[in-house]
Amino acid sequence: VAVIAIDAMGGDFAPREIVAGGLCSVKEDGIPLALFGNEKTVTEILNSIDPAWHSLPLKIVHMPLAIGMGDEPVQAVKSKQNSSLVGAVASVRDGFCDAVISAGNSGAAMAAALFLIGREEGIDRPALTGLIPGVHKPTIALDLGANADCKPINLFQFAQLGVKYAKDVCKIDNPIVGLLSNGEEKGKGSLLVKEAFKLLENAQINFFGNVEPLHILENKVDVVVCDGFSGNVLLKTFEATAALCGDSKMRSMFESVKHGGALLLGVKKRVIISHGSSRAIDIVRAVRFATKTSCTKDLATFG
Amino acid sequence: VAVIAIDAMGGDFAPREIVAGGLCSVKEDGIPLALFGNEKTVTEILNSIDPAWHSLPLKIVHMPLAIGMGDEPVQAVKSKQNSSLVGAVASVRDGFCDAVISAGNSGAAMAAALFLIGREEGIDRPALTGLIPGVHKPTIALDLGANADCKPINLFQFAQLGVKYAKDVCKIDNPIVGLLSNGEEKGKGSLLVKEAFKLLENAQINFFGNVEPLHILENKVDVVVCDGFSGNVLLKTFEATAALCGDSKMRSMFESVKHGGALLLGVKKRVIISHGSSRAIDIVRAVRFATKTSCTKDLATFG
Repeated sequence: VAVIAIDAMGGDFAPREIVAGGLCSVKEDGIPLALFGNEKTVTEILNSIDPAWHSLPLKIVHMPLAIGMGDEPVQAVKSKQNSSLVGAVASVRDGFCDAVISAGNSGAAMAAALFLIGREEGIDRPALTGLIPGVHKPTIALDLGANADCKPINLFQFAQLGVKYAKDVCKIDNPIVGLLSNGEEKGKGSLLVKEAFKLLENAQINFFGNVEPLHILENKVDVVVCDGFSGNVLLKTFEATAALCGDSKMRSMFESVKHGGALLLGVKKRVIISHGSSRAIDIVRAVRFATKTSCTKDLATFG
Repeated sequence: VAVIAIDAMGGDFAPREIVAGGLCSVKEDGIPLALFGNEKTVTEILNSIDPAWHSLPLKIVHMPLAIGMGDEPVQAVKSKQNSSLVGAVASVRDGFCDAVISAGNSGAAMAAALFLIGREEGIDRPALTGLIPGVHKPTIALDLGANADCKPINLFQFAQLGVKYAKDVCKIDNPIVGLLSNGEEKGKGSLLVKEAFKLLENAQINFFGNVEPLHILENKVDVVVCDGFSGNVLLKTFEATAALCGDSKMRSMFESVKHGGALLLGVKKRVIISHGSSRAIDIVRAVRFATKTSCTKDLATFG
């Protein structure tokens, strides 16, 4: 049985909402968890919600320190070895846990993943990967924010990571890859996109070419590749519009791709980075996501 | 009375939809127009729609050539002096017309505006400017696609152009400027955004800081500044979501900011670049937009 490590002290509403979400996952989904954080604080929260939590497959691993949202990521990871984040990531590195979730300082989570777990071979920069909603099914999108500045080779590698994920996890044969651009014609795009286009059209992948946001919603491609800055704008614009939209079909389309976090593809173990504003329900979703070996179920809920 | 020049041969559905839209503008809104294009072709279209068009304030200016969507912009503008686009832009330069609209090759329209009309003093790169919808009122956004690659100084100048437009046309006192980023905290963003942030926080403008898409929808700022690549992703994601959204309130929110084109700010005359896929209704909107000296009416339709 997979055990999920949770950074209980990371997030705008940590530790309370994180711990509450973890407890809910154990009780509702029966997923064994290890909560990394201040033992006294975490125990008090668990006791306040359900004093019978001791009988559940839930373990607290004491870590006296916490990394703050404003801490400098690399410095914090190096100097706070016994922080909740570093402890949780180390537990995955050492094989005690199978995946780690943090809603804390995302730069620090990235840094911890890189330093402790390490990159996959041939990958220079890991990418935050998630699902963008679509009319018939969701689309795998990366990078959604880990790398605000990218080189063409990074986008090329994101395509490789996305294709692998689409095949292995989503069971899509020969997935179609699109490159986010400001126009669908070849030759459109920033200098970065134009150079990445050349690499992708000569690669051994099923390359569609440039895509615009409407093409993504219309499911022209299975995987969309972009730098972390524009990917973040893309994702957050979809989310913001859906949040203000009274159309229940569209809202449910967006709700159904909510995984409570994005997967950091390109590192050797499963690392999920949740939004800083995560509430208990987001942690429940993130835990479910972390235990998944297939996304076909999600895809089947569409269309 | 202002006369609007229209590039009748530019656009995916030119000349028919462009000419039909122009005719509709003259008849419904009484706006005098000059249609630049092949006289025989344009005359035939006008005759087929309304043989009585001769009595309207509508003039055909014969231009034998047309610039295609695939033509190299700078080369096309230089070599096709008697094209519909160059003729229309020249008429504005020479004072015969007050504004020009083209739905053709947007790079060529940019190039013609730069070469024939010229930039405003202190502006290195003009920016495509439009309105992004919001809960209470629309937000002025630039650049929406003219410059896929920008330097920090370009974003700084876009802020100046946006503030001037907000004050002069939209009658907003001391407009609030936001910088599109992948996080609201200072220090978030690409290298470009981080450098632009420094310039903007030290400028004599009402600078809000970084903004995310939800902040724009929530009207935290009056003007949002971005590079043309991410601005294009922002705009097209809003449009794509709205297009698929069954929520009538949201659809009308998006409909009401449709101007049939974006204004090229930073050149000395009024140039409106419409989408290549423009239909007659889009040209009618673009003509209305071109004659506007105030956007307060649009703003008043909100909230």
